[in-house]
This record gives sequence, C-alpha cells and structure tokens, in this order.
Amino acid sequence: MSAIITLLTDFGDLYPAVMKGTILRINPDAKIVDISHNIPPQNLRSGAFALMYVAGRFPEGTIHVAVIDPGVGTGRRPIVIKGKQIFVGPDNGLLIPAARSMGHFIVYEIPPELCIPPVSSTFHGRDVFAPSAAHLSRGYDISEFRQIDDFIELDFGEVYVSKESLQGEVIYIDDFGNVITNIPGSLALEYINYGDHVELLGRKIPFAMTYDEANSELITIGSHNFLEISVKRGNAAKLFRLNIGDVVHMTSKQ
Amino acid sequence: MSAIITLLTDFGDLYPAVMKGTILRINPDAKIVDISHNIPPQNLRSGAFALMYVAGRFPEGTIHVAVIDPGVGTGRRPIVIKGKQIFVGPDNGLLIPAARSMGHFIVYEIPPELCIPPVSSTFHGRDVFAPSAAHLSRGYDISEFRQIDDFIELDFGEVYVSKESLQGEVIYIDDFGNVITNIPGSLALEYINYGDHVELLGRKIPFAMTYDEANSELITIGSHNFLEISVKRGNAAKLFRLNIGDVVHMTSKQ
Amino acid sequence: MSAIITLLTDFGDLYPAVMKGTILRINPDAKIVDISHNIPPQNLRSGAFALMYVAGRFPEGTIHVAVIDPGVGTGRRPIVIKGKQIFVGPDNGLLIPAARSMGHFIVYEIPPELCIPPVSSTFHGRDVFAPSAAHLSRGYDISEFRQIDDFIELDFGEVYVSKESLQGEVIYIDDFGNVITNIPGSLALEYINYGDHVELLGRKIPFAMTYDEANSELITIGSHNFLEISVKRGNAAKLFRLNIGDVVHMTSKQ
Repeated sequence: MSAIITLLTDFGDLYPAVMKGTILRINPDAKIVDISHNIPPQNLRSGAFALMYVAGRFPEGTIHVAVIDPGVGTGRRPIVIKGKQIFVGPDNGLLIPAARSMGHFIVYEIPPELCIPPVSSTFHGRDVFAPSAAHLSRGYDISEFRQIDDFIELDFGEVYVSKESLQGEVIYIDDFGNVITNIPGSLALEYINYGDHVELLGRKIPFAMTYDEANSELITIGSHNFLEISVKRGNAAKLFRLNIGDVVHMTSKQ
Repeated sequence: MSAIITLLTDFGDLYPAVMKGTILRINPDAKIVDISHNIPPQNLRSGAFALMYVAGRFPEGTIHVAVIDPGVGTGRRPIVIKGKQIFVGPDNGLLIPAARSMGHFIVYEIPPELCIPPVSSTFHGRDVFAPSAAHLSRGYDISEFRQIDDFIELDFGEVYVSKESLQGEVIYIDDFGNVITNIPGSLALEYINYGDHVELLGRKIPFAMTYDEANSELITIGSHNFLEISVKRGNAAKLFRLNIGDVVHMTSKQ
Repeated sequence: MSAIITLLTDFGDLYPAVMKGTILRINPDAKIVDISHNIPPQNLRSGAFALMYVAGRFPEGTIHVAVIDPGVGTGRRPIVIKGKQIFVGPDNGLLIPAARSMGHFIVYEIPPELCIPPVSSTFHGRDVFAPSAAHLSRGYDISEFRQIDDFIELDFGEVYVSKESLQGEVIYIDDFGNVITNIPGSLALEYINYGDHVELLGRKIPFAMTYDEANSELITIGSHNFLEISVKRGNAAKLFRLNIGDVVHMTSKQ
C-alpha cells in the first residue's frame, strides 16, 4: 500500500509540480493528493482552516505537507507533527488546528539531513518540506529528532455568541461564494434555534438546516461544522461584500 | 491493478479533496483522477456533456463519480449505473447521456449502508457518493440493490437542422472560448458540406474541417462530435457573446 | 514501480482528463502527474520554460507529455526525445530546452502505429501524444523509430547584460505576479552584486538574495535560476504592468 502525501499551499500553478517531482524522486511509490494550491496568499487562517477541514477525512498515517509561509528565508523553524496523521510545514501555526483536531501530537524540528541542499531562501516547499515528507513516507525514523514545546499557536480569532447576537470573523470563502466564519456550529446551536432569524448588514436572514429551506440568503452550519453565510443559488460573498478577515456581526431577531 | 475512480463536480477548490480523503480511507489503493471541478454551478447539461465526452476514454470498469446536484438535501435518489463502466451520482439526469453512450446499463438505488452517517443535507459528494464509489471499487456486490426504471432522463435540448439552417443550444464553453452546441456533427453533415458558409449573428463563417482552413471564425465538428463555433487563435464565446444555454441559429448561405 | 507520466498543456479544464483516460486505457498502472494546464495559450516560450523548470525535479525515466501546439492539424511532426528522461510532444521547440538541460538526447519521429486512429486535426494530445506516452511507459521499443536531426530549436530570446545594464524578455509570470525574465542568474551575477540597485521603469530597486532583504520591489535570482522581478507581498506584474513577451531594461545604479 502506497504512502499518501497531501499538498496544501498558496502556490497556485507550477510550483506544486516541482514539489511532486521532488517527492517522487525520493519515493516513486508515493500517492500524492492535492488539497488546494489556491489558499489566499500568505493567509495562515484560511490555510489552517482548509487543512483542518480536509485532513481528518484521510486515512491514519497520511502525511500532509502544508506551506503557507510568510517567513520563508528567515529563522522560522521547519517542523513535523506526529499524531494519528503526520503534518509537515513551517512553525507558524498553520498545522496546529488540524493536528489538534486529531488528539494527542508531538512536534519535532526537521533536521537539515532531510533537506535538499542548497536550501534556497524562497522555496522551502521544494527544498525542505517535500523531501522531508518523502523521506518520512519511506519510514525515516523521527524519534531522534529534537522535540519542540514552544511551537507557534494559531487560533481562528475572537467569537462572541449570545441569545442577542453572533459575532465572528470570516476565515474562508469557498468557490460558491459561501462565507465561512470562525463561529463553531455547536456554539451557535446553544443560543439560537433553526428557524430563528438574524439581521446581517441590513438583511433579515433565517438560520436554516438546509439550503432548500430558504428562498435566498441564509445562515447554516456547513459540513465543516462552522457557521456559514450562504445565498441559495447565489454568491454570499458578493451579495454581502465580505472578504476573508472581515468581522461579521449578526443581531438575533426573535 | 488499482481501481480507477474519476471525479466530476461543480465544487471548485477544496471540497474535491474531502471526497478524495473519504475514498482513500475506504480504499487506499484507489487511483483517483479529476475530470473537472469547474462545471458551471448547478448546470446539469454542461456536466452531462463533459462526463459523456470524457468517460468513454477511460478503461472498462472505471467508476465515475459525478456530482452536480441542485436537489441535494431533498428527496432525490442517489444512484449507481452499471454498464461497461460504472457511474455514481444523483438521480437527476446527469449520468444518463454518458451511460447511454456506452450501450446497455442498469440503474440501481444506492442503499443507506454505503453512506457515511450522519448524512449531511449539503454535501452528498462526501457522505453518499464518494463512499459508495470507494466500496464499489473494492468489489461491493450491487446485485441486491433495488433496480430503478423511472430514473430521471436528461437530453441536451432541441436541435433543428435543415439545408437552410442549423439551430441548437450552447451546452459547453471550453477554456479556449470554443462554443460547443448540442448539434450532433453527424446530423449537421447530412445537410451541409465542408466549405459551405453559414451566417451567425451577422457574420458569414465557413464550415471547416480544421482550424487552419479558416482565417478567423469557423464552425467545425470538434473532437467530441458536436458542432462547435470557434475563432482561430481567438475566443468565440467572447466574440459572439454566447453563454451556456443560449440558442444559436445559423442560416445556411450557399 | 509504476511509470510516471507528466502532462503540461495550455488546455485548461476538461481536455487533460481525456488525455488521462487515454493513457490509463493503454497503461492502467501509469502514475499521471499534472505539471500545468494553464500555460498562456499557444505560448511556446512560457511552456518551454515551465517544462524545463519542473522536469529536472522528476526521477530518471519520467515521461513528460507537453502540448503547446499552434501547428496542430498541419504537417508539423510529432516527436519523442530520449535522454535521461523522455519527452513527447510536437516538433516546435517546446521540448528542447528541457531536454537539453539534462545532457545528451536523441530525437525520434513518432510513427503512426503509436497513434489512435482516426487522428483528429484538432486534438493530437489525445490521438497522438497521450497514446504514444502510454505505449512508451509500457516499454515500447523506440530504437526502430526514425531519428531526426533537423528538429525545431527554441531559445528564450535575446539577453544583454553588462555592468551598466541588464536587458531581457519576460518569459513567465507566476501566480504570485513574479516576473521571470530570460536572463540567467549566473550571467547576472558576473556583472552585478547583491546589494546593488537597478532602475526599472522609473523605480530604483535592489538586487536582493531573499525577499526579506527588500521592503517592496526587488530583483532576485529565483529558484529557477533566472532573474526575477518581484514585489515583497505584492504583485510585480501588476505594479510594473509587465506581460509575457515584454522587453525589460534595467539600468545599473552604483
């Protein structure tokens, strides 16, 4: 059975193929799967959300390489995280929510011997993370790596939820224009009920269980278990002019 | 030899990776191939055309998962179609032209035991179709499934062809801006000859066998065997301002 | 160990999947990797750069299928190039820089028996190049093929470098907006030093070793070893309004 290596980056076109060649040169038997290469450039929260959302669907032992890396070429450490699955990427918080969603994990610093010299100052996806993942997929022993306890954390920003209002931030906008907030669905459900309405930017919109319950705009709990603002057969991001990072404030109308 | 599973959706980025993880968790040995994730949202005709166009090129036994699914979360049935190849998706017509292009087939309803509970109301690609395809790729026996005879049909819309005119609808626009109509090439060839001209939206354009026979605009029979409106080294969709669903009427000029 | 077949085209969506099905029908065991399907249409230099940049990262024996093919349907020959790796595509220069970057190679004409009849006049990716690559991946003997010495060459255009100025052409713009010129990094380094400044379109910009050394605009030697114009956390192509094919002239300021 081939090792599975996933890739998540903000690289767009071409550079991911360089990573794939690099992996296959070390482990020609690896099965490489793209998660996304269109994360908004340098956006750690969007990348961390996407990785957390997708990774848990993969089999145990999957190796996820994620590279959103504003600090490339500086002193930030390259890390590998070992839990039920394995995460490889920069020590900037990107990997932590996904790793944490799977229970116990240990963080190690990637040693230079896993890299391909000379390590460039601009493309650690190629020189550090892809080769490290490929070596790990062949069973490279990491037990001797240096453990790190002071790794960088990342959270998804502030959330305020009450019977009167819901407030959070936009962490992801998908290709349908659905606006995904950082408000956990379980938290929202403690305070508001399906069928209730909220007011958002001058519009009164229902909290619906499915897209089909609403005529147009709605809030719902998406398949990722976060509160999502959607427009049935429409584009919520465009309608509400929302972008990643915006604060959204919804007032509950009983 | 690994089972081949293809994916065709209107999901854009990220969600296809969730389907891939779901498949690999059930069958880590599956070979997954993307057909497209950029079908115009909710457009069954474009999706059905794309699937029919591409599927026949794959080996016998390939499993195609196609999800353009405006009715997700309602009562529409999930189906699997068995012929020379296997199709998995919603019972809304999407799969039928591709299945029919390969000869005899039988339609079955997907039973709940192939799904991953709890089945969400928004993402059957993940909860129903991906796991079903993965189980089928491991040889799951479908002979006990309930056969369906009243499955939903889909056609590509009205076509009128005569010596004087050709009329059909735009069913697909590719990334070159080539405009693919629902007029079968074989039908067009019965009435007009290569070298003839037609008038389309005020322009007189030749019916050419290759792009290189024309100087600019042309109609031709594409590699998909439908009549196609093209502009040599240009973008026909932009030039003629045509969109998917538009009726195109060409008057023959002898 | 499965044969690796990469694909590089200007086809955008859908058509690459047709090539994949065609390959898998001949060799179901092939491991197919996308390099890019978003090369600017018909742009041989961009395609040749991308192929040269990426191919060398793949293992020996990899088969690269590249199709940027303005001459499809005319008499241009289909070729296979054998060196450390194998290249399949049209005889229009596209494959040559990548092949040459790997040392000695021999060019052969692809014989009709490797193609799938009837060969269309519009889609040799499907009818000629994909099946040829698939047959080669199964060990098809090419020693009997006709050798070609008069294959078409391609270069990346004129370059002038001196202590006073650097001049070249834009051959690629990546998804970050980084502008890649045809000026080899090694050549630039003979004449200017890191820390020097040049003037480009009215702006004075440093020649930096890493993105982080600059505050905004910079020129640097990218991971591809060509001189690149970048803007730290910005889009150089937009800032300088540069497109592929533009001549860039930088005056050295000591």
